[in-house]
Amino acid sequence: MSSIRYQVNEPRTIDPARALALRQEIEEFNADYCATLDANDIESWPEFFTEDGLYRVTSRENVELGLPVGLVYAEGRDMMHDRAAAIARTQMFAPRYMLHVLSNTRVISEAGGEIQAKTAFLLMQTLVEGPTTLHLAGVYHDRFVRVADSLKLIERQVVHDTNILANDLVYPV
Amino acid sequence: MSSIRYQVNEPRTIDPARALALRQEIEEFNADYCATLDANDIESWPEFFTEDGLYRVTSRENVELGLPVGLVYAEGRDMMHDRAAAIARTQMFAPRYMLHVLSNTRVISEAGGEIQAKTAFLLMQTLVEGPTTLHLAGVYHDRFVRVADSLKLIERQVVHDTNILANDLVYPV
Amino acid sequence: MSSIRYQVNEPRTIDPARALALRQEIEEFNADYCATLDANDIESWPEFFTEDGLYRVTSRENVELGLPVGLVYAEGRDMMHDRAAAIARTQMFAPRYMLHVLSNTRVISEAGGEIQAKTAFLLMQTLVEGPTTLHLAGVYHDRFVRVADSLKLIERQVVHDTNILANDLVYPV
Repeated sequence: MSSIRYQVNEPRTIDPARALALRQEIEEFNADYCATLDANDIESWPEFFTEDGLYRVTSRENVELGLPVGLVYAEGRDMMHDRAAAIARTQMFAPRYMLHVLSNTRVISEAGGEIQAKTAFLLMQTLVEGPTTLHLAGVYHDRFVRVADSLKLIERQVVHDTNILANDLVYPV
Repeated sequence: MSSIRYQVNEPRTIDPARALALRQEIEEFNADYCATLDANDIESWPEFFTEDGLYRVTSRENVELGLPVGLVYAEGRDMMHDRAAAIARTQMFAPRYMLHVLSNTRVISEAGGEIQAKTAFLLMQTLVEGPTTLHLAGVYHDRFVRVADSLKLIERQVVHDTNILANDLVYPV
Repeated sequence: MSSIRYQVNEPRTIDPARALALRQEIEEFNADYCATLDANDIESWPEFFTEDGLYRVTSRENVELGLPVGLVYAEGRDMMHDRAAAIARTQMFAPRYMLHVLSNTRVISEAGGEIQAKTAFLLMQTLVEGPTTLHLAGVYHDRFVRVADSLKLIERQVVHDTNILANDLVYPV
């Protein structure tokens, strides 16, 4: 498993004009990613990753303490599909709405066909008959590659500021 | 009245490069729309719509249950002007600040001069001497046309995740 | 000291295509600005300003009442460096995470090498073992110039909707 390379304020090593063009493309990608999850269409979620893509959720505190792993969700699209199917079957899933709000996408580098980027996120949750609350806030630490002209994630590390119980992290961020 | 065509994760039928160009333009439009409302300048708000534009606010729950209407606010700019003038006259309006935060604008289609797009929003509210709280979270479901080189809304359907009383929806979102 | 020119819904006096290009550039600038602060790297924060740049934080209420000054934080990069160094030394600073979410950047004007723009912000705060809460919401009122091909702030006026005690505004927004 790839180790997390966590640095909130990582210096950029990419030409500004190129960063801007890639940012647009990543914003389009993320808008589709979020719309898929906000529609509860989690069975389509693994398609945003490469076949062997890594998805991981870790608290910022764990990362800064140098703890080796967080809550690994899935390594490889097969594991994501299994997980997504299991979640989709549960009845627990229906009665809540999720809404992603993203901001400040920063393209850090592009080398060897790999694009590294970070994006701040807020994940809002609305329970039936309940208020809308902030479920999770943090930063996506992403590595993208291009597959058949489309971007795919080879790695999305979700590093959240929010203190949260592992049980509450069952759904993809 | 046009019925809502609600699909959070509607597939896109537009060329990616064109989607990107239109997204920029819609983001500029929405920044002006939000600045107008956040300045409490609701008398200018109808100008963002076409003469016969539709503005509607509905809960996501209502939409998913297939309920026919939500809380219709205005059909046509005249009705919007009447409503805006009425709100502007009330003294209730002054002592609160609104702040829109938008994200994830997705251009879905462009056909026959009509552009369909969706944008996630958070609407924050600050009462005098009170804290800033999340008033409403959801998605704009929009249809735009071009009038004299500018975009205008022929339809903005505000579908909110948040459970809220009708009384609290008196101001435009 | 420059007086604040506060107008939430200030009319734009810039060509739309130029506004769009400058917005992209400002969004890149702001993503770096936010990443720096969110990483607690406040010693690098003054570098986003010109040598004699102004940074000020004021409540919207104060501005609308025409009160002359808010809480001035720094006039000139030297004063910012002093302040940043003092904050960095305090132990109070470590145990909280900040996360900026920006939206709706509007470029208002460009004249004489100066760009005026506004951006809505949410500043989220997470205390150790605590939840993530909204710390401050408002609008940046900015004036930029170009120094050696890079944008620098000659003025960032942070006008916050949120009611907050001066003591809680010790860190840069």
